[in-house]
Amino acid sequence: MVAVKVGVNGFGTIGKRVAEAVALQPDMELVGVVKTRPDYAAFYASSRGIPLYVPEDRLEEFRRRGLEPAGTVEDLLGKVDVVVDATPGGVGAKYKPLYEKHGVKAIFQGGEKADVAEVSFNTLCNYEEARGKRSLRVVSCNTTGLLRSICALQRVARIESVRATIVRRAADPKEVKRGPVNAIVPNPARAPSHHALDVKTVLPSLDIVTMAVVVPTTLMHVHIVYARLASSVTREDVVQAFMDTPRILLADDEAGLASTADLVEYFRDLGRKRYDIPELVIWLNSVNASGNEVMWMQAVHQESIVVPENIDAIRAVMDMASMEETLKTTDSTLGLMRGVIPRK
Amino acid sequence: MVAVKVGVNGFGTIGKRVAEAVALQPDMELVGVVKTRPDYAAFYASSRGIPLYVPEDRLEEFRRRGLEPAGTVEDLLGKVDVVVDATPGGVGAKYKPLYEKHGVKAIFQGGEKADVAEVSFNTLCNYEEARGKRSLRVVSCNTTGLLRSICALQRVARIESVRATIVRRAADPKEVKRGPVNAIVPNPARAPSHHALDVKTVLPSLDIVTMAVVVPTTLMHVHIVYARLASSVTREDVVQAFMDTPRILLADDEAGLASTADLVEYFRDLGRKRYDIPELVIWLNSVNASGNEVMWMQAVHQESIVVPENIDAIRAVMDMASMEETLKTTDSTLGLMRGVIPRK
Repeated sequence: MVAVKVGVNGFGTIGKRVAEAVALQPDMELVGVVKTRPDYAAFYASSRGIPLYVPEDRLEEFRRRGLEPAGTVEDLLGKVDVVVDATPGGVGAKYKPLYEKHGVKAIFQGGEKADVAEVSFNTLCNYEEARGKRSLRVVSCNTTGLLRSICALQRVARIESVRATIVRRAADPKEVKRGPVNAIVPNPARAPSHHALDVKTVLPSLDIVTMAVVVPTTLMHVHIVYARLASSVTREDVVQAFMDTPRILLADDEAGLASTADLVEYFRDLGRKRYDIPELVIWLNSVNASGNEVMWMQAVHQESIVVPENIDAIRAVMDMASMEETLKTTDSTLGLMRGVIPRK
Repeated sequence: MVAVKVGVNGFGTIGKRVAEAVALQPDMELVGVVKTRPDYAAFYASSRGIPLYVPEDRLEEFRRRGLEPAGTVEDLLGKVDVVVDATPGGVGAKYKPLYEKHGVKAIFQGGEKADVAEVSFNTLCNYEEARGKRSLRVVSCNTTGLLRSICALQRVARIESVRATIVRRAADPKEVKRGPVNAIVPNPARAPSHHALDVKTVLPSLDIVTMAVVVPTTLMHVHIVYARLASSVTREDVVQAFMDTPRILLADDEAGLASTADLVEYFRDLGRKRYDIPELVIWLNSVNASGNEVMWMQAVHQESIVVPENIDAIRAVMDMASMEETLKTTDSTLGLMRGVIPRK
């Protein structure tokens, strides 16, 4: 098997995780990553043997810091089949012409507008639609979380409507210039928040409204979801669907997994690098069904949830694997779990 | 007019506010408050000329601190017509036999179980039912907030169902032993939270489900409410109903009232004592109506929202005033506003 050659543009929160995940795939080769500044993340990448590609006008700055770039951004694009764009939101669109000039396929992130790519993507919802496309957009962390549970629920019954509240974390752990520190901030103070619109980029016909607030925490987002179905279902049907779905965990609050802090502590105990939780976590006992109404609470680790979908997106654009194959390979290489936690 | 004699048992977050509000009423006399410890709140009350009544076995402790009690708890109960019980949750039920022994009417708080009193109470929802009763329970802050907007909406159309998310503040500003500091905590991780059950103590036939999370902030709670009505309404109908309702403010986020912190800052600027916001604050632009569905976001100042209802509850048990009369007197003496903020 010839490995697909992958470059990652950006080595921030998403880029560093995707780069390391690419390096773990048997059918992929991480050619290198683009860094624009010789900061501690660049030193970390260098210390791990990850080739650094930099803007031409930054070559000297990196060398002065003792970091020898493997080449320029254009050098990297000349060597790869696919680039994962993990630049800051809105910057990916500016790079798009360069990717096209070099004839490389491109995976963008949810911070870009939907029209940056041919298809907005979630593995469980529209993998087939994405196969062979030139460009995909992996939707953002909250949207990925919503889509995982919604597309799992769709296998139980047709969904008539979703009304969801998004309780957003204020900042990632490393961000020191964001807030709020002590407030609840409607985001925005109107309906819908952009999350519902973003879900519709993948599921255009779904009747979904979301409202969001930002709160002072760094660990995870939490969603409270109310769904109406076309038919009655039992709680057992819904729990079973979530149990059967890759990348969904059901957390037992009675075993103490009763907050985002408890979830993080459990995954720290398990030795997960950076305490990443790429799985969507649904609180088991919050799953409720009554007639045709279903509701539940779920937690989204904003830094890592989109990593598996980025890996699948590479296989989709290269048309290298079926959905079942990519789920199996991605989830086993990344050590992803499903079913109830904590486990014996 | 003979003023009704009122005692307040407890001088914590609710008790001190209710006591000061009672003292502002033309038809009430604040006979005194019960304090159990000679702490800074006792010094504050003393400095404001509020008579302190204490448990008999604490008389000496108060005197040692230089605070001369006006008498014992039983002394106070011998002098008043009504006691407002603002003791910690669950303690009110223990005092109930003492209130009955002294033949005083009692107003309990939402921290007590519903069966502590004859009627669970919200002025806008069931004032008539409460008139002349021996005991009432003013429902808790979140429930009071939900009831104000729900009973306002009921005047527009019959409500078929309410699904609401409660984003709770972690602690009051003075509380140093509560959390979370950095987490989102489902409260509980199942449906419904107790808030829906508490709403039903006032509106038994309402189909309401709530789910709650606790977040690291001290300022206010926030609710995201989805309601289905028996008929279609316009956004204008709903906004007008909120505008016409006492103790509801509509905050304009476009004028910068875009978070709980902004609301608090505005009321600090207005010179509100302790920055209290006894009004329910609904974000004007969050009010949305589509067909028979209405949704909005609202903020609840947990320390003060129940104060006006406690004052009304006194008039209700004494059968001293109609709902219109008590709303007018309470709101004018406390300086409560309605309509859109900020104001010119």
